[in-house]
Amino acid sequence: MSFLFDHMREVNFQLHNVLESEQAFSGGVFADYTPETMSAFLETARAVAEDHYLPHYQTGDQQEPAFDGEKVHLLPELADAWRAFADAGFLSAHHDAEHGGMHMPQTLNSACMSFFYGANISFSGYSLLTIGAGNLIRSFGTEDQIARFLAPMTDGRFAGTMALTEPGQGSALSDIKTTAELQPDGSYRLKGHKMFISGGDQSITENIVHMVLARIKGAPEGVKGISLFICPKVRVGEDGSLGDRNDVALAGLLHKMGYRHTTSTVLNFGENDNCEAFLVGEPNRGLSYMFQMMNEARINVGLGAVMLGLAGYHYSLNYARERQQGRLPSCKDPLSPQVPLVAHPDIRRLLLAQKAYGEGALALALYASQQVDRIELADDGAEKKRLLGLLDLLTPVVKSYPSEYGLEANKMAIQVLGGSGYIREYPVEQYYRDNRLNPIHEGTEGIQGLDLLGRKVVIDGGASLKLLLECIAEDVRLASEDVVGEEITIPVAESLDLVGRVTRTLTGKMAEDVDLALANATLYLDFMGRVIIAWMWLRQARAAKLALNEEPEGNQADYYQGKLQAARYFMGRELTRTKEQANILMGFESSAFEMQDSWF
Amino acid sequence: MSFLFDHMREVNFQLHNVLESEQAFSGGVFADYTPETMSAFLETARAVAEDHYLPHYQTGDQQEPAFDGEKVHLLPELADAWRAFADAGFLSAHHDAEHGGMHMPQTLNSACMSFFYGANISFSGYSLLTIGAGNLIRSFGTEDQIARFLAPMTDGRFAGTMALTEPGQGSALSDIKTTAELQPDGSYRLKGHKMFISGGDQSITENIVHMVLARIKGAPEGVKGISLFICPKVRVGEDGSLGDRNDVALAGLLHKMGYRHTTSTVLNFGENDNCEAFLVGEPNRGLSYMFQMMNEARINVGLGAVMLGLAGYHYSLNYARERQQGRLPSCKDPLSPQVPLVAHPDIRRLLLAQKAYGEGALALALYASQQVDRIELADDGAEKKRLLGLLDLLTPVVKSYPSEYGLEANKMAIQVLGGSGYIREYPVEQYYRDNRLNPIHEGTEGIQGLDLLGRKVVIDGGASLKLLLECIAEDVRLASEDVVGEEITIPVAESLDLVGRVTRTLTGKMAEDVDLALANATLYLDFMGRVIIAWMWLRQARAAKLALNEEPEGNQADYYQGKLQAARYFMGRELTRTKEQANILMGFESSAFEMQDSWF
Repeated sequence: MSFLFDHMREVNFQLHNVLESEQAFSGGVFADYTPETMSAFLETARAVAEDHYLPHYQTGDQQEPAFDGEKVHLLPELADAWRAFADAGFLSAHHDAEHGGMHMPQTLNSACMSFFYGANISFSGYSLLTIGAGNLIRSFGTEDQIARFLAPMTDGRFAGTMALTEPGQGSALSDIKTTAELQPDGSYRLKGHKMFISGGDQSITENIVHMVLARIKGAPEGVKGISLFICPKVRVGEDGSLGDRNDVALAGLLHKMGYRHTTSTVLNFGENDNCEAFLVGEPNRGLSYMFQMMNEARINVGLGAVMLGLAGYHYSLNYARERQQGRLPSCKDPLSPQVPLVAHPDIRRLLLAQKAYGEGALALALYASQQVDRIELADDGAEKKRLLGLLDLLTPVVKSYPSEYGLEANKMAIQVLGGSGYIREYPVEQYYRDNRLNPIHEGTEGIQGLDLLGRKVVIDGGASLKLLLECIAEDVRLASEDVVGEEITIPVAESLDLVGRVTRTLTGKMAEDVDLALANATLYLDFMGRVIIAWMWLRQARAAKLALNEEPEGNQADYYQGKLQAARYFMGRELTRTKEQANILMGFESSAFEMQDSWF
Repeated sequence: MSFLFDHMREVNFQLHNVLESEQAFSGGVFADYTPETMSAFLETARAVAEDHYLPHYQTGDQQEPAFDGEKVHLLPELADAWRAFADAGFLSAHHDAEHGGMHMPQTLNSACMSFFYGANISFSGYSLLTIGAGNLIRSFGTEDQIARFLAPMTDGRFAGTMALTEPGQGSALSDIKTTAELQPDGSYRLKGHKMFISGGDQSITENIVHMVLARIKGAPEGVKGISLFICPKVRVGEDGSLGDRNDVALAGLLHKMGYRHTTSTVLNFGENDNCEAFLVGEPNRGLSYMFQMMNEARINVGLGAVMLGLAGYHYSLNYARERQQGRLPSCKDPLSPQVPLVAHPDIRRLLLAQKAYGEGALALALYASQQVDRIELADDGAEKKRLLGLLDLLTPVVKSYPSEYGLEANKMAIQVLGGSGYIREYPVEQYYRDNRLNPIHEGTEGIQGLDLLGRKVVIDGGASLKLLLECIAEDVRLASEDVVGEEITIPVAESLDLVGRVTRTLTGKMAEDVDLALANATLYLDFMGRVIIAWMWLRQARAAKLALNEEPEGNQADYYQGKLQAARYFMGRELTRTKEQANILMGFESSAFEMQDSWF
């Protein structure tokens, strides 16, 4: 049995005990999502992931996609996996009925996706991008665009990509150079080069819909002159029929350290001046549209990193339980039997840290997903805006914390296995290689830090940060009422003041010297990540405590005890670092800021 | 030009300015090692590394060793690289003239090795093991063993291995099961299985000399019943001629995530009851002999991890200087030119941290090497013992700090390159994969922590720790005299008291509850690593300050300023964590210790 079975218990705890989803979904547009319905979807996701995603995880890494100059070849089994995913409805489930979906709440949708990410993150890039691209078309496209492009993306005939990055620009989107020229028929012709385009070519769908950022000739410089286009690999007639190839050429595949199922491509648009594309929404608003997709993608990247972290955790836990090795320092009898690895305190630390990182970050990814549903359910615009602000504030942490600590967890999983962890006969080294992408794509850690400190905590006079601190304070109050121990509640309560002081100090510097104020933004991101994950552990501890009050039996009681212990670990070993970080931040530690290029 | 050119300046700074090697070598057995001689050896090392090691680094990773059931195939160029290394004298240089060497001091030897490790760590395993195995034979072997086995190992005809680990035992050496049975002719017959044996088979030398740990039948249980044997792959006649194959069979190669030039093997000894081996030294003393080799190997593993860290640092630094991307937050003009990556403060942090980890750890590896020379130069046995105690105390940190932070540095190098860092077209992902082995082999981080806290700091009533603290205090005094800034001297001075308090608290618990006392040994290892590397930065800052007093010109002055700035970074961003760690350690934080297996 794979760890996806264990993961079902975890998902149920998060959805029901922590997020109280039944209550959240009742009475509104999600009223059909009863516990039974939720369970059925989750079980389908688990089964499809188990049968179609998991078996190819290692094979697809060993036999990475290859380009013969004409066509990209993928492991043939992956086309079947794609078909199984589409047939189970997961490309369309979140859409409303009008767009062929089931209006699935995002909380449940993320929970379902977690099984696929856990089984094979490396292949999940295709579906993640297709769903994101489709959502852009649904939100900003015309009815005709929806019919021609979204419909075949929801049934799996077409896939989607997001084509932002260019060779000369990297993270700096304002320097995009790809051009778009209006044609008499209202369409555009694109010309330019894109790089690191995930899923930019493959052999599993009939067509690929690239969502491309480009400048219409004569548009303003910088971010205000970027527009969004639909650019299909194969032209699509008005009736939806496939035409001839569009002028989008695969210049080559990039060969990654991991995450190899999903191709990474260099694409040339308009080499023959005949690259047809269609404007989405209004001209020059492309970047703000794309941010919708990027925010979704960021939450998904976070969730993917979580699942790699948890996959490594469960694998190394099982290994540590089975593998007999050595004795405790107190044992002086060499004839006594060896003990399992898990009996060694340092191995338990490696396991408990993985659990704390993975399940803490899972709680956050699902909490953020629940905000999407709460925004939809909110009665008025002001409340929607308030909740959207909170979600926007959380997004850089949802993306970055799991990327950093999911990777750290995978490093620890290797360490538990020792020499075996370093060889390809075991899966943990692949988790580690795959996870190394996550702190890079969809905005590096550095970019997320600037987004959080330079934008999200200052917007609207800091309203979203205020709301976040209120939410944490309310959870501290509830946890204290439910007699969660002070070793868990007090550290979180103390963090509230610290976050306020640090943030005021840093943002207070912005008017005076914005470069210095933001110089340690990546450290601020980690600082906030620790506080927010500590909050997630407080919430889980409360849920576990309430569940223990019901006197569950055997295994289940042990599981809740584990939740409380992981919360203690997090407060005692991870949140503790925030005081040092606060000192560095409030002191504007500037050794790197002042370092001169010539001194290196 | 590769980074080995930049590395020469760094090595010269360490050898001359920091370690004052001229003075250290003058007047004793190393008096021939003048600055000119040293320079000639270093230049030879650089040239051979540049010409023969560097060119195959990526190729040998892509075309890893393969076993066709008969023979192991390596990239053919590697045999030439091995020959060039041997012909330059580096397999024998450290031996005295009697054993074909040049009595090269260890400080210089390590400095020479650093070029090979930096050029191709993945291939360096063969030479590292051959030198280590040879040293064991020289120290504990008979004259006949030295003539038959050591001589061809110093000229490169034979290679060596250390065969400790078995499938069922991993890090727990006391559970070794391989047996040795005495024969009428005084030789032994081995029987057993060994795993993860690096260099256990290859196609570059005529013969391989395995140094095997095994139990003589009837020996005591546990570590007191382990003996050391020479077991050649091909039998060697008394005249040194090669005979037929010994009964040592390659059961298979293990396929690693990185470090692929050096084979990792499973070996079967005595499948046909005919595996000839020769006892080294006295029966049942094998583990204490092997510790000599392991200690050397641990210093070399540390130095290798350092060099991977520095290779990534220099690569990412050059990239950050050349690659133009984005603008500073204070720049609001999208038409202004992009700035180089190095202009972004967070990129400078990633570079400065790499410099601080790499050059700090290099200073430590060379300091430890200098202790080897000081031990040899010491006049009396008591002084030798004192210095050996200090070296033994430092060894777990020399091994573990670079393994942990060299890897962290490589992670940062990838981050500087962004998406490019993740693809195999650039070398940084290989550095990262190669370096992941270092926290595992030659004793995991967990083992090093237990060695430091459970053994090295308590031996002789804590005499070695006391000596360490005296050495640090003396360097603080010198640095203060030479007006190194208080932002550098005070944090180091304050650490002395903290180390004393933490260590007393932990060791005070040992009699009462040794398992709890040692439960956080890995954290103690990291804590001590930070203090010791801070000390190394204080020493470098002093050397830089003294050099700046000489008013050097241009580049060179910049380089010394960089040393001072890296020291400030280390005190302001890395040593700061020790207070939090001390609280956790002295509080016996025990969430993991108390975690129950069933709660996971």
